Amino acid sequence: MLPLKDEYNIFAGKNIQRIEALSDGVFSIAMTILVLGLTIPFLEAVHTEGDLGLQLLSMAPKLLVYFMSFITLGLFWTGQTVQYTHITKSDRHLNWITIFYLMFIVLIPFSTVLLGEYITFKLAIGVYCFNMLLLALILYMHWQYAFKSNLVSRDIPDYERVDKAMRNRLIRVQIVYVVGALLCFISTYLSIGFILLFQLNYALPPNFRANLNKIK
Amino acid sequence: MLPLKDEYNIFAGKNIQRIEALSDGVFSIAMTILVLGLTIPFLEAVHTEGDLGLQLLSMAPKLLVYFMSFITLGLFWTGQTVQYTHITKSDRHLNWITIFYLMFIVLIPFSTVLLGEYITFKLAIGVYCFNMLLLALILYMHWQYAFKSNLVSRDIPDYERVDKAMRNRLIRVQIVYVVGALLCFISTYLSIGFILLFQLNYALPPNFRANLNKIK
Amino acid sequence: MLPLKDEYNIFAGKNIQRIEALSDGVFSIAMTILVLGLTIPFLEAVHTEGDLGLQLLSMAPKLLVYFMSFITLGLFWTGQTVQYTHITKSDRHLNWITIFYLMFIVLIPFSTVLLGEYITFKLAIGVYCFNMLLLALILYMHWQYAFKSNLVSRDIPDYERVDKAMRNRLIRVQIVYVVGALLCFISTYLSIGFILLFQLNYALPPNFRANLNKIK
Amino acid sequence: MLPLKDEYNIFAGKNIQRIEALSDGVFSIAMTILVLGLTIPFLEAVHTEGDLGLQLLSMAPKLLVYFMSFITLGLFWTGQTVQYTHITKSDRHLNWITIFYLMFIVLIPFSTVLLGEYITFKLAIGVYCFNMLLLALILYMHWQYAFKSNLVSRDIPDYERVDKAMRNRLIRVQIVYVVGALLCFISTYLSIGFILLFQLNYALPPNFRANLNKIK
Repeated sequence: MLPLKDEYNIFAGKNIQRIEALSDGVFSIAMTILVLGLTIPFLEAVHTEGDLGLQLLSMAPKLLVYFMSFITLGLFWTGQTVQYTHITKSDRHLNWITIFYLMFIVLIPFSTVLLGEYITFKLAIGVYCFNMLLLALILYMHWQYAFKSNLVSRDIPDYERVDKAMRNRLIRVQIVYVVGALLCFISTYLSIGFILLFQLNYALPPNFRANLNKIK
Repeated sequence: MLPLKDEYNIFAGKNIQRIEALSDGVFSIAMTILVLGLTIPFLEAVHTEGDLGLQLLSMAPKLLVYFMSFITLGLFWTGQTVQYTHITKSDRHLNWITIFYLMFIVLIPFSTVLLGEYITFKLAIGVYCFNMLLLALILYMHWQYAFKSNLVSRDIPDYERVDKAMRNRLIRVQIVYVVGALLCFISTYLSIGFILLFQLNYALPPNFRANLNKIK
Repeated sequence: MLPLKDEYNIFAGKNIQRIEALSDGVFSIAMTILVLGLTIPFLEAVHTEGDLGLQLLSMAPKLLVYFMSFITLGLFWTGQTVQYTHITKSDRHLNWITIFYLMFIVLIPFSTVLLGEYITFKLAIGVYCFNMLLLALILYMHWQYAFKSNLVSRDIPDYERVDKAMRNRLIRVQIVYVVGALLCFISTYLSIGFILLFQLNYALPPNFRANLNKIK
Repeated sequence: MLPLKDEYNIFAGKNIQRIEALSDGVFSIAMTILVLGLTIPFLEAVHTEGDLGLQLLSMAPKLLVYFMSFITLGLFWTGQTVQYTHITKSDRHLNWITIFYLMFIVLIPFSTVLLGEYITFKLAIGVYCFNMLLLALILYMHWQYAFKSNLVSRDIPDYERVDKAMRNRLIRVQIVYVVGALLCFISTYLSIGFILLFQLNYALPPNFRANLNKIK
């Protein structure tokens, strides 16, 4: 290993703005590509409004998985965004942790189509949960590395508590996907229901639902 | 619910720049994915220029729906962009309203292909209009929530009137899609014509058409 | 038309950064989606290295059209970017001209696949050139409107000459596509050759080729 | 060539922010489109968990190539990003070198699907390595041109060494792909193994692996 190589490594991966731009790009495309799993029923089988209605109804499991995966992507996007509001510097290692993170984000549409197609198969739930578990693990590593390498801004008022809240959150997510995977041994629908419930509870927390009353 | 969880919620979803970047990403991909619904006639059936011409002509309904959906995406993108020129802060709730908004933006290519394939079916128009109605509703909620939670800049000269104009506009859009959906009971082409006319009237308003004369 | 509607129009479409972000998104996806037209030869027909070589060779016309369309997208992206380095304000009309511009940018992958599939058909060249001609026209309108509506920065040293150079350039592009379309009456390959030559002459101008010597 | 044309060339391609935005867009889509090569096994052949497991196992070569290509895209994205942290000005030539760079970035999903489908074919490895070699060459040219045309910031402390490190790195990458291509004459799996090893050695360098211990 030449010293020049090390030098290259010193100035690589420092641009946070572009890491964020690449991430936003990957997330938005992964979100949009999910819809490609929703294939339209073919014309030959459909002659009446009733036929079309039945065909659309038969897409219900795919739609369910679509919504679940979209919210999942939303959760992981929010998770990464929150970290970067506190991370003010980057280095090549953080850069590469992000690239590996995105590598498994991009696999979500694959896991989703697999689950939509094989919704009653334990293996499909297993692949799905493993994908998400890995993402939560990498995101945890991402924060840990940034925190320990002093890439996190020290200007946050309650520095240690932010770190704790961040890690607690991600550990809870990991537990949810492990439990979700295990529940498939009872029923795969139970797994999906459990994960969806957890996600909606997070996406629509009590104080949000209370705030909704204000909106009307 | 642990206090740490609430703490996480306090600092989540605050980054407006990334919400905008994610939205621009999703909109641009949804716009581009529309074109994937325009499948090219296969080679076997086409031997002469005339054959190709006929095949392209047979794509007319798909092209019509493509243009309508593109303008629709343009309208919803403009609508969200206008809100964010006044919204100067964000919180986790606004963040999640946006994610749900994007979830139904991503369904537009699906609704579009469905309508392009089944242009004479009431159900296809119904799904299409319902998709758009929901988007207008979420965008309305988005503004209402931001306005009532003091996330909108108070520096706007005519504060109350902006709020009123914003809400009026979105209520009008909702009415258009309800009327559009109901018109399908006469003819689905009438529904499409009505929606397109409304959209073009908005996209090319009278003063714009007047300005066009200046261009020449 | 209510006065509130006019008011909405006054504050709509002012955010140049997001117009640029949406455009960059659409261009990058259109560029990437081009590659989806390059379908891989199926396994059944390929048993030896020679088979695969022949299959790849048979893709030559598609590759040619792919390169041409990519450079075209590069030209139109550069064209729009140059305009926005001088345009410092926006309004709803400029916003909508851009959306219509993007609508035909997104059709480029469609026109490209059509031409790649039917490279010897005059109609395919016609559709292709018409698509590009329309884009050059909208880009011309875009500049004209911005210039006449005082959305262009007056700080440019040679204000009038920039305007003239901008318009001259776009008129020349329009002529190229009209001539390109007409040449198909002799041969569609002549059309493609003519357009490619013009594009490469622009993308690799004499002083660039001179500069290349410096690189070595 | 009219003087007006030269004038147009003087002010074209100067906006670095948009070149970066376009690049981030193209990279993120190319990364996400890779997953489209991972087609799901069809329902008819799958009746038991075992069937699905076998089908997923049969996707192993495609997954391998997917990971390799994703890391490759990560490497080329990091490479370009590093250059732009030092490049502070742009001109039309740099603009076009980037567009040609992106043209071959977009071909990576094509080369990847080709290799995934024909993993034992020398020609597939050849096309793959040629694609990457070309990218390394264009990136080298990109830096050389920027450096010699004074588009690189002179504020870097160790100006000459950065230039040297940058060029050394890219020459090493070129050698890797030439060697990788040649190894296919022994075995295509050897080629892939060699390239993957080099990439992982770069993406996870010794000091990173040391740092990983800190994380736990």
